[in-house]
Amino acid sequence: MEKNTKPLILVTNDDGYFAPGLHALIEMVKPYGEVLVVAPEQGMSGMSHAITIKNPLRITLLSKEIGVTIYKLNGTPVDCVKMAINQIADRKPDILVSGINHGSNSSINVVYSGTMGGAIEGCLNGIPSIGFSLCSHSMTADFTLTKKYSEGILKKILEYGLPSGTCLNVNFPVVEEADFRGIKVCRQARGVWKEEYEKRIDPHGGAYYWLTGDFNSNENGSTDTDEWALDNNFATIVPIKVDYTDHDNVKTLQNLSIEIQ
Amino acid sequence: MEKNTKPLILVTNDDGYFAPGLHALIEMVKPYGEVLVVAPEQGMSGMSHAITIKNPLRITLLSKEIGVTIYKLNGTPVDCVKMAINQIADRKPDILVSGINHGSNSSINVVYSGTMGGAIEGCLNGIPSIGFSLCSHSMTADFTLTKKYSEGILKKILEYGLPSGTCLNVNFPVVEEADFRGIKVCRQARGVWKEEYEKRIDPHGGAYYWLTGDFNSNENGSTDTDEWALDNNFATIVPIKVDYTDHDNVKTLQNLSIEIQ
Repeated sequence: MEKNTKPLILVTNDDGYFAPGLHALIEMVKPYGEVLVVAPEQGMSGMSHAITIKNPLRITLLSKEIGVTIYKLNGTPVDCVKMAINQIADRKPDILVSGINHGSNSSINVVYSGTMGGAIEGCLNGIPSIGFSLCSHSMTADFTLTKKYSEGILKKILEYGLPSGTCLNVNFPVVEEADFRGIKVCRQARGVWKEEYEKRIDPHGGAYYWLTGDFNSNENGSTDTDEWALDNNFATIVPIKVDYTDHDNVKTLQNLSIEIQ
Repeated sequence: MEKNTKPLILVTNDDGYFAPGLHALIEMVKPYGEVLVVAPEQGMSGMSHAITIKNPLRITLLSKEIGVTIYKLNGTPVDCVKMAINQIADRKPDILVSGINHGSNSSINVVYSGTMGGAIEGCLNGIPSIGFSLCSHSMTADFTLTKKYSEGILKKILEYGLPSGTCLNVNFPVVEEADFRGIKVCRQARGVWKEEYEKRIDPHGGAYYWLTGDFNSNENGSTDTDEWALDNNFATIVPIKVDYTDHDNVKTLQNLSIEIQ
């Protein structure tokens, strides 16, 4: 009985079940409820909101101790969330946390991020959902500060919930605590990755390409964006909507006489 | 010289280079410019905005005739768009069309759709971009009506462009032309897929799961949504934003005192 009165906390990520960021997150959330982890078997960075349709999924129980159960799945973060909700959990999760991602999901990265894909899927299913990221790709990154301040955010959301159809994209700068300036609620900065594929030739003479690229900001010094805040040693919270409609431009398009009837 | 004065039309899809919907779209756009097709080698339905980071990409030229060049790529629709813009095209495309998808991308399907992933990537790169879908998964679906009315939309967008940061999600119902009621600009209906994984046992005793599911609407009879319009024999245009920020809730969250500094 005691088990079911504690919040059920669903945890996923996109770096895989072995990633240090995932285990930092598990450790952070453990005191707040019953923890169910369903994480990808392989790295799923850049998998966005992808789902596995044409391949069968397999779940493997990795460990089960008091308060924390960990599964891996041969799918994407969104598959993990769907499978957790529909096949594994015995009740609806009270909150979903995704991450801690190894690398930034600020600005337009939200569109590509598997970590945020998992969070958005939770939100779609009516679960208050938060994606956490640290702006470092290092597998030995220090998550101490991120864990500490993420915990504050978790407590607020457990207490107040989130507006329906909205989840949170939370990013932390790589910074010493003495230089950390706090947490800001912001908007997503406008920007785009400019790709420069690196072309190579294989030993058999065939060409292949590796994705590389640079982030290009489309902002002119605005101070209300996540990019600005991260550059200035703040952590950032961007509320993300699952309604992608550009409501402001519905009328503009109607005025184009593109409608016929 | 003549070649460069015609609009460059970039075409992609998520069903693969062999899909009839892609070839219907190529045929439709051909009279309007120089057509460059970069389409996935394999079916990429449900791949959303995924990108390929850890595997090398390979491009194969399939055919080149006057006005139409077709490549296949071993990646996602977003990879196709990035590769087309950065490696294949000799100038910036004037318009991007993605599809014609075999199956609906209305309502929340936009989040999972590889076809819309391709269109959103075009939009991010400042190219007016449109995803076209027909609400039928059949490989022998009749694209006649879809082609005819998509052409009208294409002409408008070639003439007027699109607001920066906005692309179009266009869906067609499966309907006889006599029953077709026209084109409506709408908002994305609220809804969610409720998954029911089908569990099976392999010959070696292992469990595996296939994704299945049903769409659940969260609307109460609103008539301004894409789902309503499609159900009532209209084609739909939903303007889609690449800024996922929930601007209305930035203030709400700031009031939670979740910010610290």
